[in-house]
Amino acid sequence: MNARLEMSSESVVESAADLLTQLRAEPPLVHCITNAVVTGFTANALLALGAAPAMVDITGEAGMFAAISSGLLVNLGTPTPEQRSAGLEAVGGARTAGTPWVLDPVAVGALPVRTALARDLLALRPTLIRGNASEILALAGRSQGGRGVDALDGTEAAADAARELAQNTGGAVAVSGPVDLLVDADHEIRIANGDALLTRVTGGGCALGAVMAAFLGASRQTGDSPLVAASAATLVYTLAAEDAASRSAGPGSFAVALLDALAAIRPESLSARARVEAAAIETAEATA
Amino acid sequence: MNARLEMSSESVVESAADLLTQLRAEPPLVHCITNAVVTGFTANALLALGAAPAMVDITGEAGMFAAISSGLLVNLGTPTPEQRSAGLEAVGGARTAGTPWVLDPVAVGALPVRTALARDLLALRPTLIRGNASEILALAGRSQGGRGVDALDGTEAAADAARELAQNTGGAVAVSGPVDLLVDADHEIRIANGDALLTRVTGGGCALGAVMAAFLGASRQTGDSPLVAASAATLVYTLAAEDAASRSAGPGSFAVALLDALAAIRPESLSARARVEAAAIETAEATA
Amino acid sequence: MNARLEMSSESVVESAADLLTQLRAEPPLVHCITNAVVTGFTANALLALGAAPAMVDITGEAGMFAAISSGLLVNLGTPTPEQRSAGLEAVGGARTAGTPWVLDPVAVGALPVRTALARDLLALRPTLIRGNASEILALAGRSQGGRGVDALDGTEAAADAARELAQNTGGAVAVSGPVDLLVDADHEIRIANGDALLTRVTGGGCALGAVMAAFLGASRQTGDSPLVAASAATLVYTLAAEDAASRSAGPGSFAVALLDALAAIRPESLSARARVEAAAIETAEATA
Repeated sequence: MNARLEMSSESVVESAADLLTQLRAEPPLVHCITNAVVTGFTANALLALGAAPAMVDITGEAGMFAAISSGLLVNLGTPTPEQRSAGLEAVGGARTAGTPWVLDPVAVGALPVRTALARDLLALRPTLIRGNASEILALAGRSQGGRGVDALDGTEAAADAARELAQNTGGAVAVSGPVDLLVDADHEIRIANGDALLTRVTGGGCALGAVMAAFLGASRQTGDSPLVAASAATLVYTLAAEDAASRSAGPGSFAVALLDALAAIRPESLSARARVEAAAIETAEATA
Repeated sequence: MNARLEMSSESVVESAADLLTQLRAEPPLVHCITNAVVTGFTANALLALGAAPAMVDITGEAGMFAAISSGLLVNLGTPTPEQRSAGLEAVGGARTAGTPWVLDPVAVGALPVRTALARDLLALRPTLIRGNASEILALAGRSQGGRGVDALDGTEAAADAARELAQNTGGAVAVSGPVDLLVDADHEIRIANGDALLTRVTGGGCALGAVMAAFLGASRQTGDSPLVAASAATLVYTLAAEDAASRSAGPGSFAVALLDALAAIRPESLSARARVEAAAIETAEATA
Repeated sequence: MNARLEMSSESVVESAADLLTQLRAEPPLVHCITNAVVTGFTANALLALGAAPAMVDITGEAGMFAAISSGLLVNLGTPTPEQRSAGLEAVGGARTAGTPWVLDPVAVGALPVRTALARDLLALRPTLIRGNASEILALAGRSQGGRGVDALDGTEAAADAARELAQNTGGAVAVSGPVDLLVDADHEIRIANGDALLTRVTGGGCALGAVMAAFLGASRQTGDSPLVAASAATLVYTLAAEDAASRSAGPGSFAVALLDALAAIRPESLSARARVEAAAIETAEATA
């Protein structure tokens, strides 16, 4: 752990601007295996942002498609037998080809079918894990999980679990909440942007997982780490949510305005409003 | 049938206000097994209203989840083999745990797979059945059913069928139409609120089934009957539709405004606009 | 090829107005077997326009339902095993009953499962094939296909492939792009209406396939050819897109406004803005 990169809040925000520019210059092909409730909103969020979504959740196609995609999302919200097989096949293709991939373990812990699948996928070392605090705690084996996609715990309650998962996978972990917490083995980033209306729209969190896959795809060109890419996705998405909330009369018009805002947000507008804190994780090895 | 509760239009509207207050104070967890076309809109309607949706239609998960849910919806719009199994499993879990459940027999009668499933589910005595007149007539074995989710018959044409179903199940039956008709063994309620734009949005009726499941969940705290809970859901939903229609330029903006209106509608605003009629059903036993 | 009907741009636009009038006078029942991402938007587009959608993708129901429907769409975007069986069953029912049907071979070529299914369906001679240039080229065996639903090629690049497919099926072929190209064995039509925002909304093209099925249904009353019906659908849909774009702040509000515009567009408003060119195809036989 000697080769730790310097990371500041400013550098994270600068990287976010560069990644958004890169994403729009070369739209990443984002392979989504996601739940039936949010497919349309997820695809629309990616299209609005400037990425190219493709929902390929058929066995016999998912593996080869993951291999040619820029990034992959596997979301466990409604894991039918066909999707479970396709998800494993896709991750196999992604690993072989080096495609970065996101695991979103929706409602893991409380429900056995997806919990078993989530553990299998965890062993395949996702580039990024994204969930609310309940899900991160459950995935790390520290709780029974929540009732569904609601975040019942604050993100800080899942900080140790997130660090443990990051160490075990060698990747990054993003915990969604009023203050988003993102960690990898060496750093932690907190982002305090966003709006509570995101929790009143189905897919508000699930679509962020897909946006993270898009930024991971773009990071293959810029060389940013998964942690920085996930933080960039979070910053862009939550700032767009703030823009949308300011123009909304409720959750229906918010969801519409969020798509408009994802299309309109400009790289140079991020820094003025970003509420980002980045820090190195103090470990025994680091201080020794 | 001697122990008939008094029921007036005013008491129904008062109960609706109390149930909406209860729903927002303790958001019911609403387990939805519903068709692929309307999952997103249904989840958004529940979130807008203040309930907590979860679409768990996987075998091995559906039964245990129904047991911990506040209310369950089983909608037969696109009944894949996995959903058919999950629906039966969920109803089993709901019955064991006492979770109230709604059957929405979309397009029953005309199509054999869902018709067979609907009859199996009917024998399990749903707490509430919700459909248009064609579907209620078909489920009662009085017609061949309609072409799909369109209401081809007026609700009064299905009044006898609805009463028969209610007597056989011991639950309530809601017939959707320009004037909604809701019955149980002892009472009938008519609600003349709403807007024709509800029929121009996919899921306009299906989402109401989910909202009914949410109100059934809330009624476990207030002690209201399934008939009153379903009527409360109908009143809140159709008044929100009136609010939305007044701010819409067509079916697209109406669907968005309906979500905003479901979030904005207040318990104390119901009575001034409610067009509710409640009556006791005159039966041989009652008049003897 | 001696019995060639005269076809002018004016006659195509006149037929579009008549077909839209017919569609609203007798709403066609449109049977859609389509991908999971766009079901809601597709149903809403049909409802907004004035047609009656029904998504019946269950084996044991799809065949009989196609037989009583006005038109059928088979879209291969997310072809689960159940949908693949249901699609073949539906086409069988459509062929027996004379129901016109549309094949939308989403992402054919690149992905093997849907490519095999598309070839099987092609052999059953669809009334209409709709795709972007990449898909039409791939379906004709002239390329490997694109990465998904993006059009990577201009429509003219697929003109020969489209004509070949039309000759082989005896039906019509529609190639979507900035200028839509529609052909049958004898004629070709170009339509230059529309807006680039259609490519920023998921289902922008898929919903057009369903609208084409609706117009094919209406053409059973007017006697128009599949080519004219598909062109009418394209003209109405792309003009509605222009209306929507003029009232939108981005892709989110565009999708909403498109539904409003589909409901509002009037038959008599088409001709003033239509950018349609119709021509006979010069063939060896025709000039001999």
